Amino acid sequence: MNQVVDPGDVVVDATVGNGHDTVYLAKLVGPQGHVYGFDIQKAAIEHTATALENAHLQPSVTLTHAGHETLATVLPADQPIKCAIFNLGYLPGGDKTIITHAATTLTAVTALENRLATNGLIILMVYAGHPGGQAEAQALHDHVTQLDQQTFQVLQYGFINQVHQPPYLIAIQKR
Amino acid sequence: MNQVVDPGDVVVDATVGNGHDTVYLAKLVGPQGHVYGFDIQKAAIEHTATALENAHLQPSVTLTHAGHETLATVLPADQPIKCAIFNLGYLPGGDKTIITHAATTLTAVTALENRLATNGLIILMVYAGHPGGQAEAQALHDHVTQLDQQTFQVLQYGFINQVHQPPYLIAIQKR
Repeated sequence: MNQVVDPGDVVVDATVGNGHDTVYLAKLVGPQGHVYGFDIQKAAIEHTATALENAHLQPSVTLTHAGHETLATVLPADQPIKCAIFNLGYLPGGDKTIITHAATTLTAVTALENRLATNGLIILMVYAGHPGGQAEAQALHDHVTQLDQQTFQVLQYGFINQVHQPPYLIAIQKR
Repeated sequence: MNQVVDPGDVVVDATVGNGHDTVYLAKLVGPQGHVYGFDIQKAAIEHTATALENAHLQPSVTLTHAGHETLATVLPADQPIKCAIFNLGYLPGGDKTIITHAATTLTAVTALENRLATNGLIILMVYAGHPGGQAEAQALHDHVTQLDQQTFQVLQYGFINQVHQPPYLIAIQKR
């Protein structure tokens, strides 16, 4: 993230969870930039709001208590997005039955692809080891491998010799 | 390579080809280190020798005109290796029918795994788009995904939305 995000940029944390990435992004964009954060879980929004307060970063962040599939209704349509981060699967320490799903993930990813700034980056940490994870990972793979290589570069990065399925990273960069 | 190779290290260029990596590695290891380079093609060895001469780096390099499957007969058995690089497939600009093959590649990779220093790294650029490339890539995948995760970390890294099969990187790091 720190390689593409500059002060003043507008970015998205599509799954704020414990708020670590939200705080990190708010520091990167600074007071002239903005972070839009989403989560379907109220506890995640509350934890993140507290973390932002403690760091005096609330003015730089808009938190929305709704799934990331709604981001097109929250973000200005013509606002270029420099970076968006997704941590798929369930909230660590939370209810493991509340997971991200292919349909809503792809709705959000597609909306962000249409708004990405040049050199802008969508980063997805993909967890395929929990129930439902493999289906989401496969749908995401099918989507990103079809993206036009003239418009986007898609990079996959992960460890391939681990017994338990570790997360891997997919990065979609606008050319 | 520059993240793991320090002055004084002993490293391997398993496919010297045009010599670019050999020269780069010789600079990284410096006069106290050593590079062992291999190639089955005489022209590759000659080009690399010339490039090393021009850079005054010959004393740091031993070039062997033989396939990398012979490296166990050239390297001292107890010599820890900090880094090894393979560019699989054919020599760019050379005879496209002279390619690396699964059996000899795996012989060399296995010999290097047994000699890797702690944090040492084997880097393979894998080309699967030419005739014979897919079979070698599959054999390599089958080998590295079985490596004990307590001993090695195996990372795969590559672009996944390109029409022509681009090369991808496999990195094997000793824990």
